[in-house]
Amino acid sequence: MALIVQKYGGTSVGSIEKIKGVAKKVIDYHCQGNQMVIVLSAMAGQTDGLIKLAREMTEAPNPRELDVLMATGEQVSVALFAMAVKSMGYDARSLLGFQAAIYTDHLFGKARIHEVKTERIMKELEKGRIVTVAGFQGLDDHGDITTLGRGGSDTTAVALAAALKADVCEIFTDVDGVYTTDPDICPKARKMEAISYDEMLEMASLGAKVLEIRSVEFAKKYNVPIHVRSTFAKERGTMVIAETKDMERVMVSGIAYRKNEARVTIKKVPDRPGTASRIFEPVLKAGIVVDMIVQNMSEDGFTDMTFTVPRADFYKTMKLVSDVAQEIEAEKVLGDENIAKVSIIGVGMRSHAGVAQKMFEVLAKENINIIMISTSEIKVSCVIEEKYTELAVRALHEAFGLDDDQKRDQ
Amino acid sequence: MALIVQKYGGTSVGSIEKIKGVAKKVIDYHCQGNQMVIVLSAMAGQTDGLIKLAREMTEAPNPRELDVLMATGEQVSVALFAMAVKSMGYDARSLLGFQAAIYTDHLFGKARIHEVKTERIMKELEKGRIVTVAGFQGLDDHGDITTLGRGGSDTTAVALAAALKADVCEIFTDVDGVYTTDPDICPKARKMEAISYDEMLEMASLGAKVLEIRSVEFAKKYNVPIHVRSTFAKERGTMVIAETKDMERVMVSGIAYRKNEARVTIKKVPDRPGTASRIFEPVLKAGIVVDMIVQNMSEDGFTDMTFTVPRADFYKTMKLVSDVAQEIEAEKVLGDENIAKVSIIGVGMRSHAGVAQKMFEVLAKENINIIMISTSEIKVSCVIEEKYTELAVRALHEAFGLDDDQKRDQ
Repeated sequence: MALIVQKYGGTSVGSIEKIKGVAKKVIDYHCQGNQMVIVLSAMAGQTDGLIKLAREMTEAPNPRELDVLMATGEQVSVALFAMAVKSMGYDARSLLGFQAAIYTDHLFGKARIHEVKTERIMKELEKGRIVTVAGFQGLDDHGDITTLGRGGSDTTAVALAAALKADVCEIFTDVDGVYTTDPDICPKARKMEAISYDEMLEMASLGAKVLEIRSVEFAKKYNVPIHVRSTFAKERGTMVIAETKDMERVMVSGIAYRKNEARVTIKKVPDRPGTASRIFEPVLKAGIVVDMIVQNMSEDGFTDMTFTVPRADFYKTMKLVSDVAQEIEAEKVLGDENIAKVSIIGVGMRSHAGVAQKMFEVLAKENINIIMISTSEIKVSCVIEEKYTELAVRALHEAFGLDDDQKRDQ
Repeated sequence: MALIVQKYGGTSVGSIEKIKGVAKKVIDYHCQGNQMVIVLSAMAGQTDGLIKLAREMTEAPNPRELDVLMATGEQVSVALFAMAVKSMGYDARSLLGFQAAIYTDHLFGKARIHEVKTERIMKELEKGRIVTVAGFQGLDDHGDITTLGRGGSDTTAVALAAALKADVCEIFTDVDGVYTTDPDICPKARKMEAISYDEMLEMASLGAKVLEIRSVEFAKKYNVPIHVRSTFAKERGTMVIAETKDMERVMVSGIAYRKNEARVTIKKVPDRPGTASRIFEPVLKAGIVVDMIVQNMSEDGFTDMTFTVPRADFYKTMKLVSDVAQEIEAEKVLGDENIAKVSIIGVGMRSHAGVAQKMFEVLAKENINIIMISTSEIKVSCVIEEKYTELAVRALHEAFGLDDDQKRDQ
């Protein structure tokens, strides 16, 4: 007998019929002798509908009250799901955040879970009931409802799995697993059998589509095995687990890319102490997240500085940096929105030498110019011109032996 | 400075614009120095929509889970209302049943409030905040969500007013008060300035349209003054309060009627001990509520027995009673669906003699036959043929001096 936490996303519970389908599936697991805890998202479309309602009321809805409103979405799902299970002759109980004792900090709209008390859930499981818990919501220590932000139901599921010491946390979604890269631009992408927590975190740009990143951090911290799989198929998906020796045999596990960044370059910055902090202070104060920073070797007392920011913040950043550039008497500020970041990721890099070098060679062979480079222990990222993104991803995917040769090029 | 509890019904909060209107109104009260606690119903249509969703899932939704689902309606209202108040520059907090500490028994769908702990609400009021509480919902001592049944928000408001020792409980609705009778059938009906709790309870058939009857019982028990008034007009409505000397000056305060009953007569029942209990046992066991019972004087060892039941239970009752009639060897069972009950109500009856007699005369003068009579300390009810209902109401309204002579007959 296993204790299994399963999470079903909004598409999986998007209609009365789909909820019934999930109920049947869960009853099957239950009948096989498993203890089942089911975390649900709001029915597809509900969350957007509630946000729309709030925006009709006011442009900037109060965050505390927005959470009270948003929390109704998951409440509807779990009530309907428990009704479905009951109507099929099995016992079920829905629990909201406050009933499941999911305690968070006070950050409305993006709260972090800091404790889950499992008494109530365990009591219900011991009575032989299927327990369904509203995802995405919790309670702070003032007794106020909080929500965990988009995709927060993944985190709810992982947190419950950790607290309940579940055997596995299954995340059911509308894709069938985590791929070596985006199948939309690389037809030979392969579904991975397993990926380590750290690789999954680095694969954020791909992973975010199937798994909320915070839930992976949580899973890593508490060593909760996550099984990402499709609601609509029977095959196994991808296990997200602690690193194994096996994983290190492969040089590179996956290729990720991101197109939603922009580059800012300040030419001929006088090379004095404190200049970097003067440049970044207004940017960071404005809440803009700077990703990569590159500073060239100083020449004649001047240096060029380049960094990337989210594309949505590009114009704001250009304005802020141009003002500083004048003050510090830099030559000029250049910007480029048409960039992309391509990354190779794998825990195998630690034991294989020359991985970065191989990446540069592959890109060079395709005549792709590398604008910026950054590396971490298990990742190498290159900023390139946006138009080469697909070509770079496919070339790297093949070069690092990730191609599924049973799939033909399209 | 007064502490005021106000309740706004579904029509009053039926759209974003209407909620904004209520917010403005409440802020006005707040700015006059009052402490405001606002109980809201679900937006008009929401409750029906949720019931429909549950029925799509299963014909007989589990009552516990139905309450979890239904409670979202009021949750949406209070979140939007608090957002509205905040967006207008004033401080507000929404509280759900569990946060406002409204504790009930376990009867899902028709729970009764047995305790309200006021600490959280008082704390919020002391911070100068407008507090809005989700109506209709509470928490049982298992920590499960309960709902109070249709119109339950009235009861929430009165219970909060009692617990908070509020100066007044204002029930805002889409009518402007309690009338001496139904204005739809008696154009000269007058809005009452005040009515006693007991009269209001007897006026159930009229009162139910403006005020949930359980809330009146609650108000009577804790002596909470209720002010029933219109959301969409400035005039004062009707005060529902403890009996005053003033009220006794009037012989009759109002005329009520009910058309949703039916009459059952058993002819020639052998007059033996225990017969009545044998007749009513199957009816009461079937959960049918018997209203009036009349037994004629026994003659030659036989008696006729007549009683009324809700019209919806008429055929079921006829079947049950016909079976018993055979067993006890009564002659036959007659039934009539086309009856109505007309009542005169007033605490003044206690000090005015001959009120019932006057009622009989008025009906006789209009050639209306009285089928059954029942009386209580402050009420006389007559069952008549349904087709005479409007005529009877108008005649009694005039005869007991209730007509508003500034209104012309239509």
